[in-house]
Amino acid sequence: MLEVARYRNGMAMLAGAVNVITTDGPRGKAGFTATAVCTVTDQPPTLLVCMNRSSYAHPFFVDNGVLCVNLLSAGQQDLSGVFSNREISMEARFASTECSVLETGSPVFADALVSFDCRIAQIEEIGSHTIFFCEVVEMQQSEPKPGLVYFNRSYHHLGAAGGAA
Amino acid sequence: MLEVARYRNGMAMLAGAVNVITTDGPRGKAGFTATAVCTVTDQPPTLLVCMNRSSYAHPFFVDNGVLCVNLLSAGQQDLSGVFSNREISMEARFASTECSVLETGSPVFADALVSFDCRIAQIEEIGSHTIFFCEVVEMQQSEPKPGLVYFNRSYHHLGAAGGAA
Repeated sequence: MLEVARYRNGMAMLAGAVNVITTDGPRGKAGFTATAVCTVTDQPPTLLVCMNRSSYAHPFFVDNGVLCVNLLSAGQQDLSGVFSNREISMEARFASTECSVLETGSPVFADALVSFDCRIAQIEEIGSHTIFFCEVVEMQQSEPKPGLVYFNRSYHHLGAAGGAA
Repeated sequence: MLEVARYRNGMAMLAGAVNVITTDGPRGKAGFTATAVCTVTDQPPTLLVCMNRSSYAHPFFVDNGVLCVNLLSAGQQDLSGVFSNREISMEARFASTECSVLETGSPVFADALVSFDCRIAQIEEIGSHTIFFCEVVEMQQSEPKPGLVYFNRSYHHLGAAGGAA
């Protein structure tokens, strides 16, 4: 078995797009910042989100059964900080950005690159984390603009066009 | 349900680190390029890899029960092309780069940012794809160097240091 500290140092080099995952429903509104998001299949359109089971927001997602993956643009780096700061209440987090809804009622951020509106279709528990397998029921996409990624423990911006940066 | 073409356009904006996933064992040696890799938990160190069940390499991974995630550096963009080109045989793919092994015997690329050597602990089938949940048993990490990501249908390089690029 690999030591945890070595694993974390290795995983710091796995670049990840920065997302804010939101939900709303019977349990109430919640949102958190996540890089552990990936596409699973497009038959049917399905993505997955990993979440720490001990986090405050976890039961909101389980009880509501819906979520929205808001893929942040380079200009939304501040929101990443707001939605990962435990000192900031859910109410204050959502007060910091303009939101709408699509089909599930989960908050959709105005300036995200893409928002994937989802129903949670299946839940797997792996160690300390929960994997939500989500069917994408609606989507909102902006014009291409620079993306935001986290790599080697800091933020980086990606140009909307190709090529080395 | 969201239309597949719209979903693909949305997912093109989810930046992903570029990896080559390799295996070796009773079934033989295989490898393919993947961005659908993410960490699940560090208790115990566990990652996941999504793979199309209909791909040629799929049974190699199922039968061998082990794999290595080679996280590519910016200088290894050519390898991404080689390991995603169906016209190139497995033998020719591996002839294009220097490899060693760690604990499981899966090929470890010489110049990867990090190589995560894994045992496949659990398999889930979701639509057209298989999710391999993998326990990381050993790891090899180079000095920090620029990373390689795929975003908006093209490659981008990330500086090893922080800040907007």
